[in-house]
Amino acid sequence: MAISNLNDLFVHLLKDIYYAEKQIVKALPDMISKADSSELSKLFSAHKAETENQIKRLEKVFDKLGETAKGEKCPAIEGILKETRELMDEVDDADTLDAAMIAAAQAVEHYEITRYGTIISYADTLGHDECVNILRDTLAEETDADSKLNRLAEDKLNKQAV
Amino acid sequence: MAISNLNDLFVHLLKDIYYAEKQIVKALPDMISKADSSELSKLFSAHKAETENQIKRLEKVFDKLGETAKGEKCPAIEGILKETRELMDEVDDADTLDAAMIAAAQAVEHYEITRYGTIISYADTLGHDECVNILRDTLAEETDADSKLNRLAEDKLNKQAV
Repeated sequence: MAISNLNDLFVHLLKDIYYAEKQIVKALPDMISKADSSELSKLFSAHKAETENQIKRLEKVFDKLGETAKGEKCPAIEGILKETRELMDEVDDADTLDAAMIAAAQAVEHYEITRYGTIISYADTLGHDECVNILRDTLAEETDADSKLNRLAEDKLNKQAV
Repeated sequence: MAISNLNDLFVHLLKDIYYAEKQIVKALPDMISKADSSELSKLFSAHKAETENQIKRLEKVFDKLGETAKGEKCPAIEGILKETRELMDEVDDADTLDAAMIAAAQAVEHYEITRYGTIISYADTLGHDECVNILRDTLAEETDADSKLNRLAEDKLNKQAV
């Protein structure tokens, strides 16, 4: 279906991030089980629960717009997660794997941060105020997840991988 | 080659972003020529010149490390640019295409922001102080490019696409 205006683009990107969130939920268990640091494993577990809730929020947004909640294959997240899997396969040291998984997870977070930023901006321009509020909660969680990963890497795990 | 410590991971991610920057330089001409807004076209052109310089900076970093400047196929940027091309093909309105290209370019910027953030953090931990300074110039440019795109979208182009 052709995208002819900002509303079409808004709905398209909602479907894209909906698909992305579902792929992220599928990717996290492997990262949780492979994390050597218990702090990292807990961070990933907490983010999995958060992501499941973010999927529900997106369903609420689709509902408010009168749209069916449906994913749209998103090559960006597929590429980011493919890179994550390949990187995890190439690392043969537990501490280095923790550092690598953090770098990979931060790439995922940044993709979500940019997409939610864009979608919120569109929702605001289009006057979907309730959707703006719902999506802002998710954006705050993604930004927070990125900061926590960053802190754990810089304060502790990167040094262990030297 | 196996990645066994933070230095291996650092060099791996340098090769990954080196490949990514080269792909971005190849993708920008199409976006420059398709931008309806002359401001957007100028932003993309300026960022192409910046990206070419960022490639030279990476070559300087490889040189300082005694490593050969060589790209490593990076599925993340391939996915992000594939999504960009697909999105551009689906939009049939000039104003909406500008908004869509900004969203796509911001996804590219955010990938670079997270990768340079990680690489700088590793360089700092590993004591490669000169590399830290060189790479920080690039990170500042990426953050600035993202802000400029954001401002142009929110102040002007998204409204035109409504």
